[in-house]
Amino acid sequence: MSAMISTKLGRFCSMMLLVIGIISLIPKASVAQLNPNESQTLGSWNDCATKRALVAYVQSICDPKSVDFIPIGERIAVFDNDGTLWPENPIPFQLAYAFDVVGKRASNDPEFAKHPMVQAVLKKDTATLLAGDHHEGLLQVVAMTHAGMSVEEFQKSVSDWIAQATHPKYNKPYDRLTYKPMQEVLSYLRSNGFKTYIVSGGGADFMRVWSERVYGIVPEQVIGSSAKTKFEIRDGKPVLIKTLDQLFVDDKAGKPVGIHQAIGRRPIVCFGNSDGDMAMLQYTTIGNPRRAFGAIVHHTDEVREYAYDATPKSSGKLIEALADASKQGWYVIDMKQDWAEVWATEPARK
Amino acid sequence: MSAMISTKLGRFCSMMLLVIGIISLIPKASVAQLNPNESQTLGSWNDCATKRALVAYVQSICDPKSVDFIPIGERIAVFDNDGTLWPENPIPFQLAYAFDVVGKRASNDPEFAKHPMVQAVLKKDTATLLAGDHHEGLLQVVAMTHAGMSVEEFQKSVSDWIAQATHPKYNKPYDRLTYKPMQEVLSYLRSNGFKTYIVSGGGADFMRVWSERVYGIVPEQVIGSSAKTKFEIRDGKPVLIKTLDQLFVDDKAGKPVGIHQAIGRRPIVCFGNSDGDMAMLQYTTIGNPRRAFGAIVHHTDEVREYAYDATPKSSGKLIEALADASKQGWYVIDMKQDWAEVWATEPARK
Repeated sequence: MSAMISTKLGRFCSMMLLVIGIISLIPKASVAQLNPNESQTLGSWNDCATKRALVAYVQSICDPKSVDFIPIGERIAVFDNDGTLWPENPIPFQLAYAFDVVGKRASNDPEFAKHPMVQAVLKKDTATLLAGDHHEGLLQVVAMTHAGMSVEEFQKSVSDWIAQATHPKYNKPYDRLTYKPMQEVLSYLRSNGFKTYIVSGGGADFMRVWSERVYGIVPEQVIGSSAKTKFEIRDGKPVLIKTLDQLFVDDKAGKPVGIHQAIGRRPIVCFGNSDGDMAMLQYTTIGNPRRAFGAIVHHTDEVREYAYDATPKSSGKLIEALADASKQGWYVIDMKQDWAEVWATEPARK
Repeated sequence: MSAMISTKLGRFCSMMLLVIGIISLIPKASVAQLNPNESQTLGSWNDCATKRALVAYVQSICDPKSVDFIPIGERIAVFDNDGTLWPENPIPFQLAYAFDVVGKRASNDPEFAKHPMVQAVLKKDTATLLAGDHHEGLLQVVAMTHAGMSVEEFQKSVSDWIAQATHPKYNKPYDRLTYKPMQEVLSYLRSNGFKTYIVSGGGADFMRVWSERVYGIVPEQVIGSSAKTKFEIRDGKPVLIKTLDQLFVDDKAGKPVGIHQAIGRRPIVCFGNSDGDMAMLQYTTIGNPRRAFGAIVHHTDEVREYAYDATPKSSGKLIEALADASKQGWYVIDMKQDWAEVWATEPARK
């Protein structure tokens, strides 16, 4: 009798393990279609329209029976960085880096110190540096600090800086100031078969130094402003030197251009926070043969972060995209109302 | 007794299914470290130095216990296209496309027909078109046929062309003329956790139309020559228009530049076939902190394909890279000796 039970148990176990075996053999593509527990997955979001719409969207495009189904390889999501994944105040973090580098060089190089844009840096004259459609002064300073360096030298410089610099308001390392709700969106989309890309006005080489560690976004999924490097053989070894040639500004209408250049197909999900992201939102959501999703992070929380839109202190002006959001079906994230928590990590180093 | 046997059988089945279950649960990363049966995987290769070296290389960098171990995400392999994955004779296939498009337009547009490069096309004067370090005439013709079109219009034009055009020597559709041994290398590397990229002097937008179907290489892993597109809203819908701005030639020293732009890290495997691939081979293999592998397809088979190196009929000159191969440790593939089969598919459409 006990043998009979054992037999039945054995058969039952066999069946169960067969089921497990079969489930395990299902490729990731199908596993991704299972719905995770979104309330846990997006745990730092309050219940809000954006969260509900995002979950409904992901469920519909991952469901092979849905008319909206989109195959895994075509699930491309793009994210602005400054103001969308981490703050852009009091100044964009790459500008803080450039300020530090320029300051050090100016103290050793009187000729360099005379340049009007270097003077603007030394006087912390952000108005001059951020003037123009694409912050030309800033770009000039950034380019001056980078050009002539090899890619490896530049990477080391950024890596050294980010290891010791701290944000003036939070007194935390910059790379520990990412938004927890957005980190959750990145993870949620990836667990549903999306490739997540950064598409930022910031320098591609600057972001690639830390994007994988900070966001889990590999270098080849970082699209940013860039100039062409120059290939040389130095002492028998190949090097790529940063130049000012073919400078490409990955902002405004440049964002869809950068996306096409790097990816070659339209994204289906886009998150931004400023008018600089409007073209990317349009490119993702208007006339896309695939069902798409667009959202704007609206900075409404002056206590936990910053509150700004039409008149930001540095970058991040948000007027046109906000005015168009309702018409285009872009979700507007009210940071103060919609986010139960803001920060992904507490400071540890300081 | 029979119950006992059933019990034992049940337990045995349970154990087996448990093993299957566990094996199935091992993530792809680990599965990739198992060595497939390379003699089957690379079945159209004869036993040769390149095949043996490639297999030994992949085994060593995939073995977590090896000093040469390279994590999955960093396994980047780059392949030239024309002459490496498919032929470049009698003319590169994209040139055949441009010839057809130019021919049609010239017959309807007398002004267009007067242009010296259009005249060169109409006279099949490849010498003029392929003159210059980067085949400037060819680039001009290609650009003239593309500029002003939207990306979608261009994609349709390429797609329509490739569906009906045939290679003059083989009388097969161009996209059925890929090299079987190279298709096997692509699959073999991918099954071992590599991301495979095309890095070609050909147009990125041209190749992206068919790269996934023909090679299993998704659009975002195609790096090629390109000019910036222009973002516009037409009739309320976003479009990207092809222009001649910031033309980037992804050839010679441009190849490492294009790789850095798109990927942001050094490849560890590189296959090319001409001096145009030499900088990419250098960038991959010289001074790379990771163990790397480089190889050159040498066209030695005038019966099954073409035989050329120093004096090709169209593109594909191979002098310097061949002379340097032994010193740099690049494997030279003797197409005639090393490949048991050349073609990936037999013609079906004609």
